[in-house]
Amino acid sequence: MAFEEKTLKRETVFEGQLLTVVVDDVALPNGLGQSKRELVFHSGAVATLAVTPEDKIILVKQYRKAIEGISYEIPAGKLEVGEAGSEKEAAARELEEETGYTGALTFLYEFYTAIGFCNEKIKLYLATHLNKVPNPLPQDEDEVLEVLELSYQDCMDMVASGHIQDAKTIMALQYYALHIRK
Amino acid sequence: MAFEEKTLKRETVFEGQLLTVVVDDVALPNGLGQSKRELVFHSGAVATLAVTPEDKIILVKQYRKAIEGISYEIPAGKLEVGEAGSEKEAAARELEEETGYTGALTFLYEFYTAIGFCNEKIKLYLATHLNKVPNPLPQDEDEVLEVLELSYQDCMDMVASGHIQDAKTIMALQYYALHIRK
Repeated sequence: MAFEEKTLKRETVFEGQLLTVVVDDVALPNGLGQSKRELVFHSGAVATLAVTPEDKIILVKQYRKAIEGISYEIPAGKLEVGEAGSEKEAAARELEEETGYTGALTFLYEFYTAIGFCNEKIKLYLATHLNKVPNPLPQDEDEVLEVLELSYQDCMDMVASGHIQDAKTIMALQYYALHIRK
Repeated sequence: MAFEEKTLKRETVFEGQLLTVVVDDVALPNGLGQSKRELVFHSGAVATLAVTPEDKIILVKQYRKAIEGISYEIPAGKLEVGEAGSEKEAAARELEEETGYTGALTFLYEFYTAIGFCNEKIKLYLATHLNKVPNPLPQDEDEVLEVLELSYQDCMDMVASGHIQDAKTIMALQYYALHIRK
């Protein structure tokens, strides 16, 4: 059985700063005919499960326009063009910008966030040995953030109450429960 | 501190079958000026961690055009317009269409897949008491799928080797490890 869908025609319908959107006409495998695929291309992102010496998990409170609401998430940021290969530095920079902490970063794993239509891949890191920086990198000009340090149980209460609904954050909390929680 | 970003202007740049893409001009809170937000709207999806009586996890092998590659994932499908409120039925239908199994479904939790730019929300279910249906619902015409039944350890080997890179599938496997694994 063949799986590959060959592109017959690609139409680029949007090219933005963050996203490129295309519609592909594809030939289905096994003589099944044709279909259309609406696809979103994204340069990727990094995210960090940051755990303080007091065993608190660092979350960032922010507004997310896509859902028109407040979201609590682990520190994260998109990769700039040309940052492939230096994702760990990008993760360290985002952690410092968003939280004022530096730390020792370890790569955990990577995943596609919305593989059905989007190629965004997030590399997830663990940060330990955290230190508050006296003069951290400034936050991005268009981000309004509040930093929280919460116990695992507090985080799980926020999952249960629906305050945490972000996939990468839930994944990081599961990782914490499986591999870090004492 | 205020967080909300007010929409000053919205331009719809793409309206497809699956996705709507807009660019918002937003007023940042706290007098920080303006910015732009590129946003993708999606009607949502369901996914199911299906565990057989032999304690195997059901995965679906399929081609994902967004990454131009093969992906191994838990059964899932997008919600049709008007299916809000009947997500459990949609999850049961997708499970039967994709795998030929029916079962007892329990809602686990829901999450935004790519909250930085997209409102896609996935509701995750657990399916147990699985039964192979003699004449299951047919697969979608534009999907080519192969069904696998794997042990948790086999799945984790596929995560380690990079064959499983799908966020919802990794979340489901972590859920299995935390709450189901004996």
